[in-house]
Amino acid sequence: MNGICEVTFQPYGKRLSVESGLTILDVARRIGVDITSLCAGKGTCGKCKVKVEFGSENVEPITQKEMKHLSREEVNEGYRIACLTRILGKMIISVPERSRVGKQRLQTEGLEIPIVLDPSTKKYFIDVPRATLNDPRSDEERLLQSLIDRYGLRDLTIDYEAARQLPVSLRKENGRVTVVVWNDQRIMAIEPGDTSQRCYGFAVDIGSTKLAGFLIDLNNGKVMATAARMNPQIPYGEDIISRINYSMAGQDKLEELQEAVIDGINDLINQCCESAKIRPEEIYDSSFVGNTCMHHLFLGLTPKHVALSPYVPAIKRGVQIQAAKLSSLNTYKYGRVYVAPVIGGFVGGDSVADIMVADMLTSGETILDIDIGTNTEIALGNKEKVTICSCASGPAFEGMHIKHGMRAATGAIERISIDPETHELSFRTIDDALPVGICGSGLIDLLAELLKAGIMDCKGKLLDKQIPPQLLRRGTDGIAFVIVPQKTSGIDTDIVVTESDIRELQLAKAAIHTGASIMMIRMGLSLNDISKLIIAGAFGNYIDPESARTIGMYPEVALDKISFVGNSAGTGSRMMLTSKECKIYADRIAEEVHYLELAIQPEFIEEYAKSMFFPYMDLDKYPITKELLTRLNRSRDSLEGVGFVS
Amino acid sequence: MNGICEVTFQPYGKRLSVESGLTILDVARRIGVDITSLCAGKGTCGKCKVKVEFGSENVEPITQKEMKHLSREEVNEGYRIACLTRILGKMIISVPERSRVGKQRLQTEGLEIPIVLDPSTKKYFIDVPRATLNDPRSDEERLLQSLIDRYGLRDLTIDYEAARQLPVSLRKENGRVTVVVWNDQRIMAIEPGDTSQRCYGFAVDIGSTKLAGFLIDLNNGKVMATAARMNPQIPYGEDIISRINYSMAGQDKLEELQEAVIDGINDLINQCCESAKIRPEEIYDSSFVGNTCMHHLFLGLTPKHVALSPYVPAIKRGVQIQAAKLSSLNTYKYGRVYVAPVIGGFVGGDSVADIMVADMLTSGETILDIDIGTNTEIALGNKEKVTICSCASGPAFEGMHIKHGMRAATGAIERISIDPETHELSFRTIDDALPVGICGSGLIDLLAELLKAGIMDCKGKLLDKQIPPQLLRRGTDGIAFVIVPQKTSGIDTDIVVTESDIRELQLAKAAIHTGASIMMIRMGLSLNDISKLIIAGAFGNYIDPESARTIGMYPEVALDKISFVGNSAGTGSRMMLTSKECKIYADRIAEEVHYLELAIQPEFIEEYAKSMFFPYMDLDKYPITKELLTRLNRSRDSLEGVGFVS
Repeated sequence: MNGICEVTFQPYGKRLSVESGLTILDVARRIGVDITSLCAGKGTCGKCKVKVEFGSENVEPITQKEMKHLSREEVNEGYRIACLTRILGKMIISVPERSRVGKQRLQTEGLEIPIVLDPSTKKYFIDVPRATLNDPRSDEERLLQSLIDRYGLRDLTIDYEAARQLPVSLRKENGRVTVVVWNDQRIMAIEPGDTSQRCYGFAVDIGSTKLAGFLIDLNNGKVMATAARMNPQIPYGEDIISRINYSMAGQDKLEELQEAVIDGINDLINQCCESAKIRPEEIYDSSFVGNTCMHHLFLGLTPKHVALSPYVPAIKRGVQIQAAKLSSLNTYKYGRVYVAPVIGGFVGGDSVADIMVADMLTSGETILDIDIGTNTEIALGNKEKVTICSCASGPAFEGMHIKHGMRAATGAIERISIDPETHELSFRTIDDALPVGICGSGLIDLLAELLKAGIMDCKGKLLDKQIPPQLLRRGTDGIAFVIVPQKTSGIDTDIVVTESDIRELQLAKAAIHTGASIMMIRMGLSLNDISKLIIAGAFGNYIDPESARTIGMYPEVALDKISFVGNSAGTGSRMMLTSKECKIYADRIAEEVHYLELAIQPEFIEEYAKSMFFPYMDLDKYPITKELLTRLNRSRDSLEGVGFVS
Repeated sequence: MNGICEVTFQPYGKRLSVESGLTILDVARRIGVDITSLCAGKGTCGKCKVKVEFGSENVEPITQKEMKHLSREEVNEGYRIACLTRILGKMIISVPERSRVGKQRLQTEGLEIPIVLDPSTKKYFIDVPRATLNDPRSDEERLLQSLIDRYGLRDLTIDYEAARQLPVSLRKENGRVTVVVWNDQRIMAIEPGDTSQRCYGFAVDIGSTKLAGFLIDLNNGKVMATAARMNPQIPYGEDIISRINYSMAGQDKLEELQEAVIDGINDLINQCCESAKIRPEEIYDSSFVGNTCMHHLFLGLTPKHVALSPYVPAIKRGVQIQAAKLSSLNTYKYGRVYVAPVIGGFVGGDSVADIMVADMLTSGETILDIDIGTNTEIALGNKEKVTICSCASGPAFEGMHIKHGMRAATGAIERISIDPETHELSFRTIDDALPVGICGSGLIDLLAELLKAGIMDCKGKLLDKQIPPQLLRRGTDGIAFVIVPQKTSGIDTDIVVTESDIRELQLAKAAIHTGASIMMIRMGLSLNDISKLIIAGAFGNYIDPESARTIGMYPEVALDKISFVGNSAGTGSRMMLTSKECKIYADRIAEEVHYLELAIQPEFIEEYAKSMFFPYMDLDKYPITKELLTRLNRSRDSLEGVGFVS
């Protein structure tokens, strides 16, 4: 069956005519409909469920592979897995809320770290003398000598494109020109007249999920505008491995992913420029921070070997190139692009930024820095030595693989408390909307509260006897605890947490805790040595530090030692944009920080097993939590299996 | 009248369908038929005569402006001025021999100067250790450390494009890669396996008229192949000013000229690569030498201000850029391009090459270096000080503005002698073909022989009494001397030299002589101080040094002090390609050599007037020639007006 099929997506009302034989996901990508896909279209995650509203006769019959992801009801209602279903004729498809990528709460804020303003890119206004028969020096000589005389700028070279501007610019306003100089070394633009007051830079945090951009006035370091959006690579796979797989299918696929992220960045640039009333070509310098995969994809470097053992990046040091190398980037074409260095395959520029923001290499304190994400990077040390590791904590805290998990978007439950006496549950949602799911901070609260209420034991088992019957559900996948019953939820069912959800979260928190434990063992440091625990990451700012500590996400540090730095990748990107010193610091971090490969440490298995417990198998290491749980728990069951229970 | 007209050019048999309204010259350019045009299509030179063979009803009637350039016979035969005649329908046009640019004798040879081989671009083969979990260093670190360990290459950076090759190349032959390094600073390519034996460079001499290219093996400095061709910019104007005017009509016109010369260079590259059996992408480095206008047009810099007082270049220092900046250049795209520095608006990279080849800045001798061309550059000095000037000698010695002048191509009379007794004339033509005109070396011989035979006096006046009647012609433009009568010539008329031709040559030689005289005055040097007279330039090699001296083209230097270096621009280009030291020397020359603006020197008018005489007004300064002429000349008339005749 060949031909052209008209496909309409609801509720967007987007319509496209395509050749038959494409999958629904293919068509969605073409038309710009973001459908969640964790596996990049391999048919393994089952997240891209859509409903064929009309035209069900124009798709092939449902297969066994699809059936694995669909309930009987869903099949009856016409649900299909978008990546496994090929379109053979005209149809209307509806994308349910849960399959939409959705507008997420994007954190762009980060700490304001005081730095000495010294950007790589600066403007200099200069009045160049006219040539005469008695002084027939070239344009180049007259310009360069004037810059030496006026500003002491020696040994400058002129970029090719600036050289082409030179004879024209020099004669437009009678020798009055503004030169844009990079690193006091290279002239990258020569503009007629005095434009020295308009000199801008753009700092970007390239997250796997979100992009954040900051428009900076390079004359004073001030943030003029901020913008954020989802990473347009998401339709190619929510997780990094899916995107790497996609990029490996060919040079064009790699470039497709590169273009996607640059398109997203251009969108940020345009938003910021519009709001600050500047032209994109007035952005002469930009700075990019991202994890190693984002770093490689942004630069068009194959990320293949980042994903394969022994997981090494192609390039490690900070990259400084002409913007034109990334031809579609919408800044001054012959301006500069800086990409922060990476430490290793699993610890990228975002980790460099973490360590820089925490100033770990020069600070007198011993700092434990945890940047929570799908991969959680943990840095530990002081000016003597800093070590970093990466834990495959997984996307559970981002709501993935969790029955009603979701990102921190409108309607997500972000705060939960349970009365240990009455077991009454209270919650708050983002934007105070009807609850439609539960996000990471809500999940951490939930686990801590279930533990404290004695509804869940230290092994993560739900104790059915402790659950009020109206909040208990039983299914083929074990028992579930109702957070919001259907009648008050924003979706058609109860919002619940299942034992399998708890298992996912348990694995995630165990991974982080194991990393921190092993780092302390390897560095020969005890809890008392740590003077600061810094939580970084966009998501970090929203978690309750006590809940996280209660479930044993990290060692039991006094709450007053814990601080949050938010999106330190963005903060670091801004620092590197506005300070040459910070760029040098970044390379120093990438070179000096020692990478620890967790998986090959002898204590790994034992520590991981112990960390699976809430908060930890050996409760003596959690004296505060031990006291709390012992006091609250009326049932010894909930502490069963924990080391101290003899 | 609009529509499509089919136009055929004979004898080429080239055919093109074009919109009506274009001029014949426009169409010729589109189809690649080279028609001589000195004025770049302005209708002032009248050199682009063509004959409308069929379809004369499809052109507008002949105008007064065309008539100025055409004889009655030509009009009757259907001749038209190509740049003034618009095509309105189908036609066949024949391009007469004299209007064809023609295949010229192109000199590519130059001196072989012994230099220490040390090219900027070198290849290094290296076996990079594999990454392991215990050594998870990035590809970049492992590569760079290996290069330090094996070759002591420190502080290398990796170009963006090489970085993109790195992870792939490193894994193709199990870590064995060859890196291409520029200036021991930048890695510009990373190739799998051992390709270190294949490392090539290309040196180019960009002449206004001809392009010469040399394919060099950078491992040993040997020339592997040589090619030459006309500069494809010629159809835009044979002289530089016409091309500058063309380029000023808009950015697209400037780029058109830039593309034209790059196309021509690509042609040379392809020819050389084919003959040497290498691929153009194995050329990693290239070097370009040209006069200031060629330099600007090649780089896409507007040459406007080179042509306007005070005649300053935009850029003076040597330019080192990535080949990709000249996007159509057919070498390794991310290789390097070097463009030699220029000294001033009238003294370009070719002059730098002259001075380098003569080694004027370090030699113990005092050297007078004359590079003869449309502009003749004269350098004088020794290691204490070198000064250079440029003389507007004009294109007369290239056969232009000379009734039967032509370039040094097949059929050109290149040697002439006249028996002073019998006045019998002998000549030799290039390729021993039937004579069709006379080229520069022939013109110089002719003047010297006419002078020695007493047929021409020292003022350049033809003495009709001394001309055998069968060799004398009288016309509205004075008298003419027959070099080859019609019956033995290869064209339909006598080949003659007119008094007006002599005037052109006189002006040209006077310009050169004036330059040399003033240089000596300004430098406080006498003839005895000069230990070497070096004649450079493609044309220089063919001239008879005695004839040139006899007519006073340069001061009367002993013949054994005169040497020829041929195309020293090409030699210099090769030197700069294969030696970093030579690049530094070139910049030193551009910086240290003092430019002398002849026109503003107080002695200029007087010296010019004196130099108009053959050989010079004050014959005492030409004792050898004075003796010769006095001995040969039976008539005092021929020496009339010369200073020594009291």
